[in-house]
Amino acid sequence: MTTRLGIDLGGTAIKLGIVDESNRIIAREKVRTPEGFEQTADAMASAAKRLIDKAGLDILSLPFVGIGVPSTVHPLTGRMVLANNKGWEDAPVREAVESRLGLPVLVANDADCALSGEAAMGAAVNIKNVLLLTLGTGVGGAMLMDGQIYAGADGMGMEVGHTPLIAGGRLCTCGAKGCLEASVSATGLIALTEEIIGISDHSLMHQYVLEHDGHIGGRTAFACAAQGDVSALAVVSEYCSLLAQGIGGLVNIFRPQMVIIGGGVSHEGDKLLHRVREMIPKFILAYEIIGGPEIRLAQLGNDAGVIGAAHLDKVLHMMGRTIEISS
Amino acid sequence: MTTRLGIDLGGTAIKLGIVDESNRIIAREKVRTPEGFEQTADAMASAAKRLIDKAGLDILSLPFVGIGVPSTVHPLTGRMVLANNKGWEDAPVREAVESRLGLPVLVANDADCALSGEAAMGAAVNIKNVLLLTLGTGVGGAMLMDGQIYAGADGMGMEVGHTPLIAGGRLCTCGAKGCLEASVSATGLIALTEEIIGISDHSLMHQYVLEHDGHIGGRTAFACAAQGDVSALAVVSEYCSLLAQGIGGLVNIFRPQMVIIGGGVSHEGDKLLHRVREMIPKFILAYEIIGGPEIRLAQLGNDAGVIGAAHLDKVLHMMGRTIEISS
Repeated sequence: MTTRLGIDLGGTAIKLGIVDESNRIIAREKVRTPEGFEQTADAMASAAKRLIDKAGLDILSLPFVGIGVPSTVHPLTGRMVLANNKGWEDAPVREAVESRLGLPVLVANDADCALSGEAAMGAAVNIKNVLLLTLGTGVGGAMLMDGQIYAGADGMGMEVGHTPLIAGGRLCTCGAKGCLEASVSATGLIALTEEIIGISDHSLMHQYVLEHDGHIGGRTAFACAAQGDVSALAVVSEYCSLLAQGIGGLVNIFRPQMVIIGGGVSHEGDKLLHRVREMIPKFILAYEIIGGPEIRLAQLGNDAGVIGAAHLDKVLHMMGRTIEISS
Repeated sequence: MTTRLGIDLGGTAIKLGIVDESNRIIAREKVRTPEGFEQTADAMASAAKRLIDKAGLDILSLPFVGIGVPSTVHPLTGRMVLANNKGWEDAPVREAVESRLGLPVLVANDADCALSGEAAMGAAVNIKNVLLLTLGTGVGGAMLMDGQIYAGADGMGMEVGHTPLIAGGRLCTCGAKGCLEASVSATGLIALTEEIIGISDHSLMHQYVLEHDGHIGGRTAFACAAQGDVSALAVVSEYCSLLAQGIGGLVNIFRPQMVIIGGGVSHEGDKLLHRVREMIPKFILAYEIIGGPEIRLAQLGNDAGVIGAAHLDKVLHMMGRTIEISS
């Protein structure tokens, strides 16, 4: 029986899990993502060691450690090309964690890992054409195309977060203005919430923020909208409309059978899903004639990334890549 | 030796060509596209007959007539699903032209035809991953992916004109607001030109329009910009920036080796190309690290669609479709 360790490196948090043969997470860790790359490698390695101890495992029993990263992964070097949310360029994540753990490390894009997890045991079992979006600190995207994970012609692509949504709009961490990511990531949702709070004197959101140590988060607007607050409802409605437009455009390109929404924002569940489902038909070309895909939430929730990373050998196989385990 | 007949059905004009074995167009016709579908089928059939006569051909020597259409083509029925620029839905173009000509007809999306033409003898010979955009009445898009033409998981897709560029912006003929097509088609360029003419009292464009029977066209701004008119330069600069953003987003998804710009607007040539090339790096993620594709103009110009349509059997083969010639 092989037990595996997967790491989902997010812009905000590092999530780690020991995954058993039947893909259950039997032990987990979560730590905050530091700012610097070396500190992040330290944090991943020490959290991995703690987790291995906690699970009572022999580190040498692990075949490899898989890491899903919020970045394009260079298909030859395995380096993070640009993790724009952290400002890291050409970062040697595999070497950095291998040298700290003494274990082979495999690396892939986090959305590709999440999609592989959903395809193996989540929302997309037995479905061959699936688009997955992760709405977290940034926006990740992955496409299962006839059973293979698509990564662009040179293996650098499928960065759907950096397609335009409102050209000239909100500055994105990639340097362009108006990317999908700038509006529909959790970060974009928070920025929109802040804007509306700033102009809505009587919104419930003021009280909610005071009760949460002055913190405006991705849940602020959704929580207050559930209580009928008009300003919060405006935030939620605008956010869901932008998300539906972004998804609709990708549906017009790929025509997948299913779209899966994952990442932190997907925790809003049906409050998010119902609105997006309601709004999306008008953004899908010829929807009345040819219909559109099923829109679902990630079934594994935020675990999809960890489970996919634990099976990173399979993720790379689904991307048509050769797998080299260096130990 | 097989001589072939290709028809490029555009939103504004129908272009027809007799193509010889070495892919030269040896005779051509061009007629205005009528508004109605039946009238358009009439116009295509009578222009085809005139052209066959003009070329001194026996109609029965043609293996089929190929038609490239500005619409998603249903992979099973061959019907035009939605030609949003004409307002036609579920239009049986194959049957309509077959019954008028007594010849088998093959149908595919116009951008797919143009891409196939460029791949056979134009800008993309021997290149396996190519994105082509046609900037005409609408915006067509086609992607050569590892040598195959991609049409979405259910064969209805790759409608890149209907991805968002400025969500909530200019109304698109598809019913959504702010599609790529609404801004970067020739129609979008004309709308932008009209806006700027409306607020620029001293622009050369006023004089230019008077000299052209009051007609504002896709060339108006480019022609006046070449004479240094500030308002016209503003139109050209804004248009090229929007186009660069749209292309940049698609490059971030597909990472093609080459992007080809075709359609009517591509006649502006280097005036268009230089600006787009200059602007595009900031819209390609991690451009400084991983670079981007070569940006080129369609080498066959507006002939790519006709040549591709004449070889529509090959287009369908490149799309992985079974070819049924019904005669």
